[in-house]
Amino acid sequence: MRVELMRAYRDEFKRFYPITTRWSDNDVYGHVNNVVYYSYFDTVANQYLIEEGGLDIEKSVEIAFVVNSSCDYFSPVAYPTALEGGLSVEHLGNSSVRYRIGIFEAGASEASAAGTFTHVFVTRATQKSCPIPGSIRAALVKLTEAS
Amino acid sequence: MRVELMRAYRDEFKRFYPITTRWSDNDVYGHVNNVVYYSYFDTVANQYLIEEGGLDIEKSVEIAFVVNSSCDYFSPVAYPTALEGGLSVEHLGNSSVRYRIGIFEAGASEASAAGTFTHVFVTRATQKSCPIPGSIRAALVKLTEAS
Amino acid sequence: MRVELMRAYRDEFKRFYPITTRWSDNDVYGHVNNVVYYSYFDTVANQYLIEEGGLDIEKSVEIAFVVNSSCDYFSPVAYPTALEGGLSVEHLGNSSVRYRIGIFEAGASEASAAGTFTHVFVTRATQKSCPIPGSIRAALVKLTEAS
Amino acid sequence: MRVELMRAYRDEFKRFYPITTRWSDNDVYGHVNNVVYYSYFDTVANQYLIEEGGLDIEKSVEIAFVVNSSCDYFSPVAYPTALEGGLSVEHLGNSSVRYRIGIFEAGASEASAAGTFTHVFVTRATQKSCPIPGSIRAALVKLTEAS
Repeated sequence: MRVELMRAYRDEFKRFYPITTRWSDNDVYGHVNNVVYYSYFDTVANQYLIEEGGLDIEKSVEIAFVVNSSCDYFSPVAYPTALEGGLSVEHLGNSSVRYRIGIFEAGASEASAAGTFTHVFVTRATQKSCPIPGSIRAALVKLTEAS
Repeated sequence: MRVELMRAYRDEFKRFYPITTRWSDNDVYGHVNNVVYYSYFDTVANQYLIEEGGLDIEKSVEIAFVVNSSCDYFSPVAYPTALEGGLSVEHLGNSSVRYRIGIFEAGASEASAAGTFTHVFVTRATQKSCPIPGSIRAALVKLTEAS
Repeated sequence: MRVELMRAYRDEFKRFYPITTRWSDNDVYGHVNNVVYYSYFDTVANQYLIEEGGLDIEKSVEIAFVVNSSCDYFSPVAYPTALEGGLSVEHLGNSSVRYRIGIFEAGASEASAAGTFTHVFVTRATQKSCPIPGSIRAALVKLTEAS
Repeated sequence: MRVELMRAYRDEFKRFYPITTRWSDNDVYGHVNNVVYYSYFDTVANQYLIEEGGLDIEKSVEIAFVVNSSCDYFSPVAYPTALEGGLSVEHLGNSSVRYRIGIFEAGASEASAAGTFTHVFVTRATQKSCPIPGSIRAALVKLTEAS
């Protein structure tokens, strides 16, 4: 088995957020644990939805659930290094969106890890899928390659 | 975009471990957060390596790093529900192994979520890849389909 | 400065819950990180409120907020060791309750760590303090020393 | 039972670090979970030890273990709000140090939560307590009230 990983670079991402690492991010082998990157993913994408798309975690009628996610790990990072999360949209559907996210040491051109995750929008009350709300769609379009 | 997820069933997994959920596993939407499933993955696979393969987290010359991971989420679970993690080996290479892991409500036949992750074995001192140690390989073989 | 810690023993606790440890519980020094014990505390106390007091995290009119917490750490534990959390009530007020919680290796008579935390009950809608609901109070009384 | 909490203010702290919140910090009640504040504590104190005292998590002969901790919660905060952690030293002993830490919304004068924790320095190899190393002591003195 060859494990082939596709590297990720800064110019593939449209929006960046700073991430401060935490003591507890490092696992027993001394690096940020593989699990923690997914908490960065959630943080970056939802911050965009909240700040640019008007998502209100507590009150919005429509919310977004994660239906799949993946990550490739290229090079280790460790607390207390400052990081950045880069965000773009790979695919924008009617009720779902697939993000691509890269985790970089602050200022680095090549990502330490990169992955994807898919949000499906649902009506909070019924938890049934629904179209992406207009304000959020408008924000997500700005993260697509074409934009 | 259609999001197609391949369901996972109990008989696909060779070994099961109980998982107690935690208050903090539930996110603001009331279900176990997508990130937390990956901490279950790590827990289940390493428990097998430790108990069956003789891995010593503190002292073993060879240790295992995660190079990629993925998860599909089929149905939500929530604290305080008791869970189980099922483990099997999808591919066993010279220096790496790809696990398949399913997360089940205790006793359920269909998984709530399932995913994969790949461990590459490295020499702790150099962090360069190395063959899977014999005792661990012997344990992993028991989790392959053929066994 | 002498750091004096009061040891805790099994017979001080009224109710026990199993806790499965996780890979990510261990920090870079190879033991369960001090932070993680507080997630055990939350888990044990709320499990009792849910199972014995009828708390519904999603729907109950009254919910409980933590206003203070503390922990003394006696001896390290590490994943994959199985643990137990012991729960008792130190003080039961009109709108608040102070728990005492001990974290034990499964079956041990002396706790590895022990602490307290205080829940203040509030009306979910207003987030103002309110009397402890009757069904929960009845459950908490059973955890007091006198019972 | 009256729950009396001593508020904490910005001028009580000597050093501040930015903290970016995460999606997973919010619990099911919509605020940063009480447990997470302790991960901020660890992060702030160790960052100071590393950057100002020369602690090397991987290699230092002496390391620091937490023997007790406590926190009072004054007002809720929530992701994605940016926070700051303020650090001071309450007591500096021969082999141990008790920190006081306040967690603030970025720029706020009054803390949202504040607590203490005590590090005991130990020789990594033996895990027996030892004097605080000179470079770390010199850094900690700067965080005491007298300085």
